[in-house]
Amino acid sequence: MTTTSMVSAELHTEVTLFYARHMRAMDEGRVLDWTADFTDDGVFETNVRPDPQIGRAAIANGAGGAAQKLLDDKVLRRHCLTTLDIRHGLDDVIHASSYAIIVRTPPGGPTAVEFLCTCDDELIRANEQLLIRRRSVKRDDLVFAPTLGA
Amino acid sequence: MTTTSMVSAELHTEVTLFYARHMRAMDEGRVLDWTADFTDDGVFETNVRPDPQIGRAAIANGAGGAAQKLLDDKVLRRHCLTTLDIRHGLDDVIHASSYAIIVRTPPGGPTAVEFLCTCDDELIRANEQLLIRRRSVKRDDLVFAPTLGA
Amino acid sequence: MTTTSMVSAELHTEVTLFYARHMRAMDEGRVLDWTADFTDDGVFETNVRPDPQIGRAAIANGAGGAAQKLLDDKVLRRHCLTTLDIRHGLDDVIHASSYAIIVRTPPGGPTAVEFLCTCDDELIRANEQLLIRRRSVKRDDLVFAPTLGA
Repeated sequence: MTTTSMVSAELHTEVTLFYARHMRAMDEGRVLDWTADFTDDGVFETNVRPDPQIGRAAIANGAGGAAQKLLDDKVLRRHCLTTLDIRHGLDDVIHASSYAIIVRTPPGGPTAVEFLCTCDDELIRANEQLLIRRRSVKRDDLVFAPTLGA
Repeated sequence: MTTTSMVSAELHTEVTLFYARHMRAMDEGRVLDWTADFTDDGVFETNVRPDPQIGRAAIANGAGGAAQKLLDDKVLRRHCLTTLDIRHGLDDVIHASSYAIIVRTPPGGPTAVEFLCTCDDELIRANEQLLIRRRSVKRDDLVFAPTLGA
Repeated sequence: MTTTSMVSAELHTEVTLFYARHMRAMDEGRVLDWTADFTDDGVFETNVRPDPQIGRAAIANGAGGAAQKLLDDKVLRRHCLTTLDIRHGLDDVIHASSYAIIVRTPPGGPTAVEFLCTCDDELIRANEQLLIRRRSVKRDDLVFAPTLGA
């Protein structure tokens, strides 16, 4: 549920730069930096897995293996964030929605779109920093298809 | 024709979020929400068709069929907005130009770039809301090729 | 080296629109407009070439041939800027980092991702305008591969 109050230019800037840094952390294999953007009890749900991951440790565990595999294979993967929407919710929650184009490059190329995710986050502010308390990621290629690994 | 006055951070935020919501409306098949972002007498011209569509009803009619076809086929199509420029024009018109990467996903994938559009809009403000009074969309694949359906 | 001071909404707007215009200048074949965004002694280094280009004239020379080839071949190429990060550095330098998805369309299509570049710029302000004094561009497909033309 969101309210209709205007999003300030300061918040727009803060959220935009938050994501630019958050996405780079993952793309550069800095999983702990990436995970630090979640609350301790953050929830990560995705249509890739049947159950959500709950808590920063579980989220880090889920992301770490995939990140290491990319590093080992020298595959570069970029989360290209576009079409970011921001809305105020109740209780100072900030809703941020984006389209992430996942662009994948093996050594020497070719570069290609691997998939597209919609990402819907609930952000809160703690110690003057934004943190993700709930993330819902949906890969478009799985919306109308069986879940991977199910 | 544009003036050289600076674009404020507030306007940048407003226009950016306007497009994030406008593009989602189309991508989620909410054609009436999308059409509501045009003025009653809005003009939509594109290099896909020889004649412009004039008026909100004509614009809705043009977009509705394509949107329904995608829903029927369970194809997800995202207008990924990038490289947004904003300029002040005469008479309080705001010129907004963007690159929209159209990313298409059939059920189960694969996801691919379908085409790229440049979008040049004239925005005006009415009842504190931004509205599109004129849109010019060009698909890059048709710029140097025969018009589709001509 | 960067400081931790907050990026203002005004600077975020200015840098975002700077890149929207800068990228369009190149994509539309206006090489001199594009080159004018560098300082006279600007440095352009990339993993496509072994040596950096130093000075606006050398940078223009390097870009002009490629731009003319695209115009001759009627190929449209768009630098789709995403995931822009901005940080304050020492001595009023502004560090701006982005992911540019290079989307290429030959006449009639098909449109495809050609490659992805990470772009790390040092911006300074001169006569109230932003200028690039150093650019480091890396094509992802060349990071783990031999340099083109080496």
